[in-house]
Order: sequence, then C-alpha cells, then structure tokens
Amino acid sequence: MTREELIAIIKRKRSLLCVGLDTELHLLPERFRSLHDPVRAYNHAIIQATSHLAVAYKLNLAFYEANGAAGWRDLESTVAYLRSLGDCLIIADAKRGDIGNTARKYAEAFFDQLDFDAVTVAPYMGSDSITPFLGRPGKWAIVLAVTSNEGALDYQFLPVEDGRQRLFERVMERTAELGGPEELMFVAGATRPEILRQVRAMAPEHFLLVPGVGTQGGDLAEVLREGLNTDGGMLINSSRGILYAGKEDEAIPMARKAAEALQRTMEVALRARGVLG
Amino acid sequence: MTREELIAIIKRKRSLLCVGLDTELHLLPERFRSLHDPVRAYNHAIIQATSHLAVAYKLNLAFYEANGAAGWRDLESTVAYLRSLGDCLIIADAKRGDIGNTARKYAEAFFDQLDFDAVTVAPYMGSDSITPFLGRPGKWAIVLAVTSNEGALDYQFLPVEDGRQRLFERVMERTAELGGPEELMFVAGATRPEILRQVRAMAPEHFLLVPGVGTQGGDLAEVLREGLNTDGGMLINSSRGILYAGKEDEAIPMARKAAEALQRTMEVALRARGVLG
Repeated sequence: MTREELIAIIKRKRSLLCVGLDTELHLLPERFRSLHDPVRAYNHAIIQATSHLAVAYKLNLAFYEANGAAGWRDLESTVAYLRSLGDCLIIADAKRGDIGNTARKYAEAFFDQLDFDAVTVAPYMGSDSITPFLGRPGKWAIVLAVTSNEGALDYQFLPVEDGRQRLFERVMERTAELGGPEELMFVAGATRPEILRQVRAMAPEHFLLVPGVGTQGGDLAEVLREGLNTDGGMLINSSRGILYAGKEDEAIPMARKAAEALQRTMEVALRARGVLG
Repeated sequence: MTREELIAIIKRKRSLLCVGLDTELHLLPERFRSLHDPVRAYNHAIIQATSHLAVAYKLNLAFYEANGAAGWRDLESTVAYLRSLGDCLIIADAKRGDIGNTARKYAEAFFDQLDFDAVTVAPYMGSDSITPFLGRPGKWAIVLAVTSNEGALDYQFLPVEDGRQRLFERVMERTAELGGPEELMFVAGATRPEILRQVRAMAPEHFLLVPGVGTQGGDLAEVLREGLNTDGGMLINSSRGILYAGKEDEAIPMARKAAEALQRTMEVALRARGVLG
C-alpha cells in the first residue's frame, strides 16, 4: 500500500486506528475456543466488527509463533482475509533485525511469503539490517525509535557522543538517510507524549506507529495533540483494549464499541487539524 | 542444558564449534531438492556428519520463516532430531526483543513450543525485553553486544553519556545485572578481534556466541586468542562455510571436512589454554 493510498483511507474512514491482533487462545470467549481454528475465527470476527473503523491491523508475531506451525497458518489466514478487504495496511509487528543476508530472508518471509505491507524493525544492528526492507514500492519498514515500555529508558534516551543527541535521535537521523517517508515509518510510544512531540519535530512527514494507548497507559488526546501532521501521519494502535474489551457474548460488540470510541476521538482531532478538508 | 553440561560436552568433543543451519533450498544439492522435505533432510544429513564435532547448533529463524508453516515444521523436526542426540546446545537465532508480555510469548515459542535451549535477544527495548528469557534453569538468553556486520558501527560503538562507555559496554553492564553466567551469554562478532578482547575482559565468565568466522571474514586463530577462558567460554559459529562447503555429492563430506578443520584448530587452542586438563 502506497503512502497516497494510506492517506486516502485515513480520510475516508476518518480514523488513524490500528487494531493490534495479539490474539491469545486462553483469553477468547468460550464459543470461539471450541472451534477448530479459534484464533483465526476470532481475528476474522474482530476484523469484521472493526474494519470500517481501522486503517491498519498489526499482527504481533510472538502470539502466533507461540502456537507453532498452526500459529503460522493463523497468520496466513488472517493476512489473506485482510488483503481481501483491500483497504487497510497490514503490519507484521516482528521487530526483526539481523545481518544483511538474514534481513533479506525476513523481508522475503513477511513481504513475499505472507504478503504483509509493513514490518517493524529493530535498529541495534544498524543500516544493513534495515535496508533489505526498503526499496519495494508499497512496502514499509517501521523502525523502532522510542518504545512504550519501561525498558525504553535503558538505552533509547542515552546521550551519545558529545551529548548533542540521544540514542533514539541518532537512530532516527541515521535511518532517515536510508529511505524516504513513502517507505519508512518510526515507532514512537504513546506513554511519553513529550517525546512524541520531539519525534514529530524530527520527522515532520513520516508516519509514526504509536503503540501504548490504553492498557499500557498512553493517553489518546495527548498523542493526537503531539503527533498529528497534515496527512494525519500516525497509526495509533490498540490491542488488548479492543480484543478483550468484553467477555463471552459481549466480546465482539464491545470490541466494536471500543474501536468506535477511539475512532470518534480521532475524527474530531483530524477535523480540527484540517486533515479531512 | 546447564552450564556444567555444556562445559562437559566442550571437553568431551574438544570443540567450541557451533554449526549454523541457515539452510536455503536453492543452495542444496539436487538429490536433496527432489525430496519431499529437502531442508529437514539436509539438516539431518549435516547434523549426522558433524555432531561429533559440534557442541551447538544454531537455527537462524529467518531462513525457516521465509518458508512459512512448512518452514516452521522444518524447525520443529530439526530441533527434535538435535534433542534426540542429547549432546549439543540448540540455539534459536531469532534476535527477538519486545515489551514484557510479548517477550514472554517469544520465550514460550522458543523454549516451550519448540524446545530450544537458547534464544538470541536484541537489547534496544531494554530490560523487560530480556528478563522473560531468564530464570528458567537450563535455558539461556544470548544478548547482542557486538555484532559481526558492517552496521554494527552505526550504534554499538557510540560513546554514551560522558564518554566513559560505548553503547555495547552499557548493554553488557546493564544486562549482566539481570542474570548470571549460567543463563546469559553475549553475542560478540568475530570480525573485530580487538573488541572481542574487551568483551572478554568485561565478562570473564560468560559464554560468548561468536558469529562471523569464515564467509564474513573473521579469523579463527584471532578469535581463539582473544576469547578463550578456562572453561572454553565460547561457541564459535560457522554457517555457510560448513553448509555449502561442497557441491552436489561433495556437500556432506566437505561439510564434515570443514567442521573437522575448525574443530582441530579449536582443540589445539583448548589444550594450550589448559581447558582439556
């Protein structure tokens, strides 16, 4: 999906919502757990309930790999279903990062074998771990800048060299040399809104993938205030807050309600910012 | 596998060799490519030819994920075969790193679902991305310190804060606070032997996983000089140099020869260092 297509979908759905499919068998309603393929059935139901509200879906690889080859088939099935809808960005939240020949294999796994539009990538191993995900029109590398977790404080904010930059700023600067805003996004966590403002200042045109709203404590209004640009420019993720919004027969209707509440807040902010024209 | 068991195997096999199973279908001999499960058949043949010489096997996840659910079954089959031999450390070269609840799922995927002994972990997201891999007796987290690729220069050597440390040193210091040398190893690439000396000085007791000998240009004699400790203390990986040492009918015999050459050099160094008693 190209940048222009993504922006058109944001305007049409009046939303920046990314739904995170961190689907866990033991948290599913009983009527799904008794099915032959409970995870994919639940994913399909969540997608059906939210696809008019969400511009992106993010599949967290860990939750599928924990189920082995069956989990991989759930991934394939879910991506194929999303692809058939044709109007959402499909993200592999994989946080891969390895030497060039291995990074190329990961790009093959996620872009060719599985047909994702985007992959999250970890920067510690440097440029040759990122470039194999670039240079494919319509495909995206989403590089970790500032994450939403407590451990983000361990290294990402360290002043580097003479203290002019912090590590995440160096990562953003160096990474932006590798590709433009039509193929590169940054992860910027919602749990530190003042940092989101700095990330936006460094990358005014890039899309930001923003995890951490909801269960992790990030505040949507603050995220919208700090991160919006004139294209929208963000994909704001909610996983557990949607997937597990209600129990048993309430799970799917409550998921839709949770997504609607997020979308409405996003729409107001998008209008105020002039994104919707 | 515990640290004591690993050291006993090193002494018995007189080797530090880790064979990297970065197996690619299009590089296999014709007689394997025509089989129903060519990758697992080749892995089994390589393991049969080298298991008396290798103390560890490292499966690079990217090469399996690029083959989808079938690749995952190749992983399962190869790990099960290695487990049946009972005398080698089985490493998932996955370089995972994510927030706590996701890292726990990756630990479940690699330690429980797939029965690996060890997983490589990327440090950018900090402590809560590493701790879920610790605290399981006989299981190991292998954390990236200095990698063997060109991109290692982008961030790993940046002086942090007042310049007292470089980033990889901070990573090692902080990570060593999370677990001891019975559950934690570090990745230290073979392509910068002077750095390997510094890594060894910082972590005298930890095992180091050393990639980059062979195709990537690292020199085995230098690695042995800089990295050995009184337990051996290293797992020195060769992937392409063994897997693709010969073509067609020569592939397996040449793989064994390549492994033998590495093991012989290792044995000489282990004797000289007094590891073999």
